[in-house]
Amino acid sequence: MQDAFNEGAVAIGVDIGGTKIRAGLVRRDGAVLKELTLPALAEKRRVMDQVFLAINTLRMYGEETGSGTLAGIGVGSAGQIDFERGSVHFASDLIPGYTGMPIRELIEKKYALPVYVDNDVNVMALAEHELGAGKGCRHLVCLALGTGVGGAVITDNRLLHGARGGAGEIGHLSVDLHGPRCICGNRGCVEVYASGTSIAGRYREEIAAQDRALMKEAPADTRQIVTRWLDGEPAAGKVMEDAIAALGSAVTSLIHVFNPQAVIIGGGLAEIGEPLFAPLRQRVEATAMASMRQEVRILPAELGGGSNMIGAALQVWVYGRERAAAAAANANEV
Amino acid sequence: MQDAFNEGAVAIGVDIGGTKIRAGLVRRDGAVLKELTLPALAEKRRVMDQVFLAINTLRMYGEETGSGTLAGIGVGSAGQIDFERGSVHFASDLIPGYTGMPIRELIEKKYALPVYVDNDVNVMALAEHELGAGKGCRHLVCLALGTGVGGAVITDNRLLHGARGGAGEIGHLSVDLHGPRCICGNRGCVEVYASGTSIAGRYREEIAAQDRALMKEAPADTRQIVTRWLDGEPAAGKVMEDAIAALGSAVTSLIHVFNPQAVIIGGGLAEIGEPLFAPLRQRVEATAMASMRQEVRILPAELGGGSNMIGAALQVWVYGRERAAAAAANANEV
Repeated sequence: MQDAFNEGAVAIGVDIGGTKIRAGLVRRDGAVLKELTLPALAEKRRVMDQVFLAINTLRMYGEETGSGTLAGIGVGSAGQIDFERGSVHFASDLIPGYTGMPIRELIEKKYALPVYVDNDVNVMALAEHELGAGKGCRHLVCLALGTGVGGAVITDNRLLHGARGGAGEIGHLSVDLHGPRCICGNRGCVEVYASGTSIAGRYREEIAAQDRALMKEAPADTRQIVTRWLDGEPAAGKVMEDAIAALGSAVTSLIHVFNPQAVIIGGGLAEIGEPLFAPLRQRVEATAMASMRQEVRILPAELGGGSNMIGAALQVWVYGRERAAAAAANANEV
Repeated sequence: MQDAFNEGAVAIGVDIGGTKIRAGLVRRDGAVLKELTLPALAEKRRVMDQVFLAINTLRMYGEETGSGTLAGIGVGSAGQIDFERGSVHFASDLIPGYTGMPIRELIEKKYALPVYVDNDVNVMALAEHELGAGKGCRHLVCLALGTGVGGAVITDNRLLHGARGGAGEIGHLSVDLHGPRCICGNRGCVEVYASGTSIAGRYREEIAAQDRALMKEAPADTRQIVTRWLDGEPAAGKVMEDAIAALGSAVTSLIHVFNPQAVIIGGGLAEIGEPLFAPLRQRVEATAMASMRQEVRILPAELGGGSNMIGAALQVWVYGRERAAAAAANANEV
């Protein structure tokens, strides 16, 4: 059994999003031997068909090329994932009919292999912890700044799941109880200021407040708004400063709540680098308690866009070894 | 060794605060066979002398009365406690010279017994988890509303400590990034609105805003301000509503971050019961994500004022059994 987890083995990692599925044949060191991207076909409710298509394709590729023993399949998915059950506890209408989907069970039925299913930001954090910016950190907090704001937390080298896999929804930590309403029902959530969707929306509002006619030309792409901010445009500056202030407040609160060694920030917005990280670090420096601030570094994620897929696959080794060790311990006792 | 952890054994629990030390001879079921309270003598830097005096007195009492095998000593202390080292990582000037104090080492040197040292709110959470409102919950968040606002978190049946025992500082989670400055350096922390000190200070300000002459008569005692609030006095109402709003926002954020089964609230302010809990539950009901709100109950702490001391003692059984089990497993392997 232990043999399946050796360094030469491979695992299939599947990253399920609302629009696409990205899957790869991954080694323990994070090397991706083969990768493919498929449309999620969420609106046609064919997400699991696409997942099976991806797995079949990669398995066949692996066999044909002699890539090594297939040790298992790991999935990272959008939505609130019940890690223990390997099923979707809750998903928004982004993927219709997805709530309740018994992902692990469905995959296990088709393949006689260990299967692990977790939330997409959780597996991203796992990847950063095992191979990226969080290597060697027992305690870390991860933020993913994309269309929304996702989060994940590792304490004592273990991912925080909570009662039903909902833990780590850092995007819905409120930084202003009087702030604007969030889609989650709360007010002033980080996501209201720092998600791609919010940045575009708030920028449109800023432009409209100046001149309604200009609103049509306002870019919806975060990158373009960031460019305008760096070029010194006041409206873009206002929006980005609000985003950084919200992130700074949330990061300080998270430092007080978790006393982590690292806060790792990934996703599209994080790719702008120092213009984001420098003022963010300054804010945290000015607001976090000294006794905890000294322990913590605020770092960009290292593994880039493939980190969900890689982290999904890494579950096979991380949890597989744990299971094997537990089984061995039980065997010794008997 | 296992024998020392039987139900008939006793442990000494010590609760170290800035003004007093409360210690007791405690059984596994939480029964307190003997209890005493001593001044902390913090300003005279004699805290550890007082701790030894308390331990000696209780040990002698236990021997004289045949109270059962003394299985160990547990300490819950104010300050940021490094649980792994059993020392004070950081303490404010409330206890001068306390930062760096190697509590566990000092106690272990005097007594050939297992010693465990943790933060006071952490051991309160442990007590509630083992014997109180959190019994049977794998995931819970604890708030202690006293002079300050303390916090503790249990996930997967384990207390969250973080890199240097600082985790769980929920009082310094910010609910308003534009709010008033907190002693910690941050803005709009829960503690700025909901600690006893803040409630008294904010009430004085409200009164002063109406009529400066009345300020001298403004009570500094939270209980009296609560009485005025319940009697319908607007100034007290404003202050208490702000406190509940801040607590509501923080509790919702904590539900999103931890997906707990229970949020347990203790400390003096929590003793007012439903007038606090009813509006707090309403706020959380209106703001937390449905998929996590359904899992969680917001409950008053059950064990009252002695819970720190009891929780301090319970460490001896909780961690003692863990250690014994680990030692046994290691012995099996060899």
